[in-house]
Order: sequence, then structure tokens, then C-alpha cells
Amino acid sequence: MSRVTSGIDPCGSVLLTDLYQLTMLQAYHDEGLAETAVFDLFVRKLPERRNFLLAAGLEQALDYLEALRFTPEELAYLERTGLFGAEFLAYLREFRFTGDVSAMPEGTVFFPDEPVLRVSGPLPEAQLIESRLINLMNFQTMIASKAARMALAGEGRRLVDFGFRRAHGAEAGLMAARAAAVAGFEGTATVIAGATYGLPISGTMAHAYVLAHDREEEAFLRFARSMPGNAVFLIDTYDTVEGTRKVVGIAPQLKREGIPIRAVRLDSGDLAELSKQVRRVLDAGGLQDVKILASGDLDEYEIKRLRDAGAPIDAYGVGTRLVTSPDTPYLSMVYKLQEYAGRPRRKRSAGKETWPGRKQVYRKMEAGRMEGDALTLADDPNPDGAPLLQPVMENGKRLAAAPPLEEIRRHAAEELSRLPEALRSLETAPAYPVTISPRLRQLADEADKSSRQ
Amino acid sequence: MSRVTSGIDPCGSVLLTDLYQLTMLQAYHDEGLAETAVFDLFVRKLPERRNFLLAAGLEQALDYLEALRFTPEELAYLERTGLFGAEFLAYLREFRFTGDVSAMPEGTVFFPDEPVLRVSGPLPEAQLIESRLINLMNFQTMIASKAARMALAGEGRRLVDFGFRRAHGAEAGLMAARAAAVAGFEGTATVIAGATYGLPISGTMAHAYVLAHDREEEAFLRFARSMPGNAVFLIDTYDTVEGTRKVVGIAPQLKREGIPIRAVRLDSGDLAELSKQVRRVLDAGGLQDVKILASGDLDEYEIKRLRDAGAPIDAYGVGTRLVTSPDTPYLSMVYKLQEYAGRPRRKRSAGKETWPGRKQVYRKMEAGRMEGDALTLADDPNPDGAPLLQPVMENGKRLAAAPPLEEIRRHAAEELSRLPEALRSLETAPAYPVTISPRLRQLADEADKSSRQ
Repeated sequence: MSRVTSGIDPCGSVLLTDLYQLTMLQAYHDEGLAETAVFDLFVRKLPERRNFLLAAGLEQALDYLEALRFTPEELAYLERTGLFGAEFLAYLREFRFTGDVSAMPEGTVFFPDEPVLRVSGPLPEAQLIESRLINLMNFQTMIASKAARMALAGEGRRLVDFGFRRAHGAEAGLMAARAAAVAGFEGTATVIAGATYGLPISGTMAHAYVLAHDREEEAFLRFARSMPGNAVFLIDTYDTVEGTRKVVGIAPQLKREGIPIRAVRLDSGDLAELSKQVRRVLDAGGLQDVKILASGDLDEYEIKRLRDAGAPIDAYGVGTRLVTSPDTPYLSMVYKLQEYAGRPRRKRSAGKETWPGRKQVYRKMEAGRMEGDALTLADDPNPDGAPLLQPVMENGKRLAAAPPLEEIRRHAAEELSRLPEALRSLETAPAYPVTISPRLRQLADEADKSSRQ
Repeated sequence: MSRVTSGIDPCGSVLLTDLYQLTMLQAYHDEGLAETAVFDLFVRKLPERRNFLLAAGLEQALDYLEALRFTPEELAYLERTGLFGAEFLAYLREFRFTGDVSAMPEGTVFFPDEPVLRVSGPLPEAQLIESRLINLMNFQTMIASKAARMALAGEGRRLVDFGFRRAHGAEAGLMAARAAAVAGFEGTATVIAGATYGLPISGTMAHAYVLAHDREEEAFLRFARSMPGNAVFLIDTYDTVEGTRKVVGIAPQLKREGIPIRAVRLDSGDLAELSKQVRRVLDAGGLQDVKILASGDLDEYEIKRLRDAGAPIDAYGVGTRLVTSPDTPYLSMVYKLQEYAGRPRRKRSAGKETWPGRKQVYRKMEAGRMEGDALTLADDPNPDGAPLLQPVMENGKRLAAAPPLEEIRRHAAEELSRLPEALRSLETAPAYPVTISPRLRQLADEADKSSRQ
């Protein structure tokens, strides 16, 4: 076996964290530092090729917080490291997350400096969760933000996630399917995502299936008979247009057998040109109802190019460039202490200054479009606009059941429709206005003055 | 709960696959197609900024193959999709992987068109595993290949993985730590990777710890007393050089208490300049033994720049740019059918042609350096060089226990030392020579002729 420790679930373990969280907890424990800490999760700036971000991952984060505990196997491992004291390990045995969480609903558009999630709780609890909280929300938000661009570029055409094989492991494949669905993808090829999140799953055949048969049309016929409700043919194994002619050739036979041909899939070559040729061959063969599905190195730029070229493509399967977001391969979400024991805190490391205190984001709308946000203190007496952060957890318990994914998806679609027009473009737009309230600036000044360093 | 199906382990499920694998399996089952298929796992070309790839992920792939089976919950989900027949689902209940696997040992350098792994087994078994096999090996290989460049740039300086929070979910964080260790990283901050793979773990404090104290030196002192064997101070929360002076200031007190200061960590600003200033302040304060650890947006280019600038940095913590490999954010590993029922198969999709048959890679060495590889048939009577693919699994069972990670790491280090000098550079080098044997070219021609499409 390649694992040296058994009994620990590597994808559900509380040890999915950085060691420094635990060494800090040992120190907090020794010092008795357990007053209320307020942490914000946010990004400091947008990546170059993003005009906005779309929040995703909250439900997985809340699942994590509710389930968080140390198992005997995990405690035994920590003991073996020799880094921790017996009393501290006994304390971990009873450790739970008992704090409060406010967050933007999943599918909400957000911008730099705006907390997408705020944790308030005893310092050790609010501290320990940092690594996994970022790990869960940073990735899903990156994917949802990328997928939202594809949804905007696709202008209503069907999008399906094909990315599992190029995702970074199991959970990445699973969460990418979910995050893409939040942003408007209709389904996924990843079976576990269907089983886990109830997402529609789709898929038919690979080139290997065609290659395992001596003749291409034989592969198509046999597949259709095995999967009469799912007759979608991959037509580019040898020659795409020839493959289409074979589909037309077997259509009468399948019709006699009562099997409808749903679609053909193109996976290589010049998709704009080939899709037009394929459409012509299908239409000339009486197969006007057969859809064209395209896949192969697609992203929002290519989808827009194909749309602009008038490619008659009905649906897109997007893989690698969805799940790895290669034009913006990471977000830099951070989780920062903003208040401890009732006093504002502010990091001043070069280029990494933060806004202290317990904050809220207010959004102003004008004629159904977002007009500007204000970052202010949560207890601001005169806010302008609607508050984006909502309470979702109190004393470690969810305040409501997770909304169905359909509801999250509807919220995201509404958010995307409210974006200022310039921000909907694939080109970089002027920054959306986020103002810092005077009271918040004042608090930051006070925090700077009070930390006598 | 945000999960709709219970009883399925999302990170260990056989449903970590694309739906089309299962629809193809239903068709293979109906058609009785179960003869021996040979699939190769390989890349078609190197990404732009890679001179070589370093194989990783084999042990997780073999774990997966050995454990592969359908649980009652998984079968119940598949039944609910309505896509599959009862007889087929009964067949899946007994489904196991019984094939053979040959592979390059982890830590082996490889190049385009070279199979890093070859599967030979009944078509349905060899087919089903495609998605997860790629998912496991593509990611670890990408990370090991990125980490190898950091190891080359670091020239022996300690490297530690700090990437968990920016990794794509749980398994990505875990496997990135492992893949980095394969390539020469000394350890990781990710606790679960220590528990799972026995990797050394490291970590001390975050900015929040410093901010939770009223005075920086108080934070350092208290931390050192809680973690007397792990006194590493993060010194950039307010001002890096001032932070260093505080470390010097508390050093006599800690010395009296018998607590050694191990290192200071820089996490922001101009690391080259700051590390020199910090070194001077430490040395002037009699702390010549205290190491300097740097982190913050590091990668191989930055490590080389710091080294070239003479920065006195002893160790590097690398996070985001290790686990997301942003200069090459994906590999395009593919798994292609090369032979079925004893006959060579060859996909001819535009730009995606493959080399058919059961192959081997031979590597020639000259004066301890790799000189060139030959891709040829496994039964080539006159090979030149040493074969890279070795049998690792027969009839679904491992032929030997997984080698210890230390052994894999040694092999990788040896491989990196054998690279032609140009390929060790961070700059793109001329392609390493991989020749295709005449017998293999002949087989490809025959495969093309025999597939009358």
C-alpha cells in the first residue's frame, strides 16, 4: 500500500490543514487566547482576465464546519509527531466549530476587498479552519467565475463539463462540476458529480469504442442498439465528414428500429468549418433534428469565436480549460484576522494591507444593473443599497438547509444578467466601483495608531 | 446537507469516471466485446515551458486498480439513472480489474509519445479505468515536473510545499505534496500529507497569530515557549527589519530559557534585499545559526532570481505556483487504444494520430547522461539501451509492494542528474531525441491500410 497511515479519510479529514494552524492552536491554548476573532475571506485584487468573480463553495464550507472533529486516528498521528502536549491533544478531542458565519449566497457576483464570507468565533476555532475554508471556496469560486464567462459567451447554448480527467484529483473533478453548474452549465460527464449533487450527467462514446470495431458504422449501429435513448455518435475518429455520411447511411435502419439519433459529436479539427459541413450533410440526409455537439480544447474565447463564425453548434463539451482555468490558473483568496477581542486588527505587510473590523457590503442597483458597491462597517447606520453578506451559521449550526442547486443557479443567472454591460465582455473592463466608507477608513487609521510596533 | 446521495465516498468511488465509460461498457457487454485491449498513457507533446516530464502518481493508480469495485450504493445510483440494463448492472457487481500493467517507475524522466504506463486487459476493464487513471497520473506528473524545475533552480536549498489552500480540493493538496516530494521537496505544510504518506511536515505561525497579540515580540516569545523545538518567527507582519530586531532582542531571554531560535520567515516585499538586511541584523546580533526561510509567490524563476542575486535564503516555502503550475497549468495526458484482439489500432483524427501496438521505450546513456530514446515494439529483437517500462501488475495484482517514497525520490534525483545539460535549464531547450523504430512505423502503416474507413 502506498499509504502509511490507515483509518484516516484523506478527503474528509480535519488534518486537511496546514501544520501552522495546529502549532498556533497549541500556543493559543497555552496562552488562553480564546476570545472572539473575526476573519474575512476575500481577494485583494481581480486576476488580469476577470471582470468579476462568482462566489461558490459555501455549502461545502458549511458541511466542513459542521462535521469538523478530530478522530482517534488523527489524534494518534498528531501525538506521534511529538510536537504537541497531552493536555492540548485532550482539548482537540472535544474540539468543535461553534462560531458564526455570514456569507454571500453562492452565485453572487463579488469584487476585490469584499468579504465573501465572515467568520466570528473563538480564536482557535476561527483560526484552524483557514486552510480548508480557502481550499474549498477558492477553487469553486475560480471555476464558477471561469464557467460564468463561458455561459456569457455561449449565449444560451448548452454547456457540459467534460473536465474530470484533467481536474486535479477526485475532489477537484467533483467540485468543478458543481461550480460549473452554479454558473449555468447544464450538466457534467462526471458520474460521481451526478451521484453526489444530483447534476444531470451526459456521455456516449470515446474514440476507443469506434477503434474497437472494424467498421465505424458498425460501432454506431451497435452503440445505438445498446443505448437507444442515448444515440450520440463521435464522428471524427477517421474523417469527420465521412463519419457524418455514415450516420446518414445508418439512419434509415435505426429509424426502422425506432431508435432516434440525438446528436453527433466533433472533437478535433476546424470546428467552425467542420460543423457547417456536418450540418449540411445531416440536413441533406433528412437529419435536421440531429444536434451537433462540439468538444476539444474549448474555452470562452473559442466558444465566442465559433459563435461569431456562425458555427451551427448546439452544445459544447468543455474540459481542460474549464477545470484548470488556464488563463487565470489561480485565485488568491485570503482569510484575514480583522478583529480580536473587540479590537480592530490590521496587517500592514507591504502590499498586503487589509480593512479591519466587522464589515458589510452594500450594492446599489440602477435600472436592474449593478451600479456600485460600498464596503462599510456591519453596524453602519446609513447604508446605501442591499447588504450582500447574510447570516448562514450560528453557534456552529446552519441556519437553514442548503438551497437546492437549481436555486443557486437561478441566483447566479440573475446576478450575471445584472452585471454592467462592460463587465460581461471577455475583454478586461474598467474596474467596477467599490467604495470604502469613511467610517471604515477611520477605523483602519485607528488600528494603525493603536498597534504600537 | 449539500449532498443528495449518501453512502458513496466521493474521493474513493468507482463513479469517479466519465459517463461514457459506462455507456461504452454497456455496449461492449451487449456485443460481447471482451478480448484483450492494449492502452497507452502518454502525452503527445511537451508544454511550451517544459523540457521534460517527471512521472508520478503510479502508486495511487495501482491502489485504484486493486480496489476498484462497485458498491451497492453506487449500483443503486446507476440503476436510478435509467440508462443501464439489469443484466449489465449485475455484471458490474462482480466487476474487477484483472489486467496487466507495465509502467515507468515514478520519478522517471519521460518525453512525448513515450508510454509512461501501458494497460493490457479485457476491453471493458481497460476502458473503464481511463478517466481516473488520467486524473491521478496527469496531475501528479504535472506537479512533479514543475517541482523538479524548482529543485534544479534551488540547487540543493530546502524546498517545502506550502500549497494546500490554493490546491484544487483535498486530493489535489494531498497529491501535490507527494508529487513535490518525489521531485525533491523536503517536506510539506499539509498535515494530511504527513499522515498519509509519512512526509516530514513543517509550519509555525501565520500573521493572524502575531496580530492576535498586542506586541510582536510578545507573540514570538509566547510561541517559542509553546513550541520550544519549533521556534520559527514570521517577521513581516509590520516591518521585516524591525521584526528581525525584535527577534534579536528576545534572543538572550530565550537562550536563558534553553529555547533555540531556528529560523525567521519572510513572506512579503523584496525578498532579495530584505533577506540580506535580515541576515546582517541576525549576524550582528549573534544569531548566525538562525536560518532564513522565504515564502510568498515563489516559483522556479523567482528562486533562480534570488539565488542569482545572492539572497542568503536557506529554504523556500512554495505554495500557489507549485500546486497550480501556472506557467503550464495543465498537461494533456491521454490514454489511447493501440491494439485490440491482437490487431494494431490507430486513431487518425487530425493532429491526434497515435503509434499503434504494444510498445517499449529504450534509453541510451553516454557518460552518465541521457543521449536519446527509441520508441519501438515491446518484442523488438535488437533494442538499443535500457527499457523504461517495467511490469508492475499482473492479473490485477501488484507484483511488488510500493517502493518507499525515499526510494522514488532518490530515483528522481538520479534521473534529474542524468538530464542533458540544456534540459536542466529553465529556458526552453531543443527537443530531446526520441526516435520511432522502423518496425513501429511499418506497423502504423499496416494499421492504416487495414482499417478500411
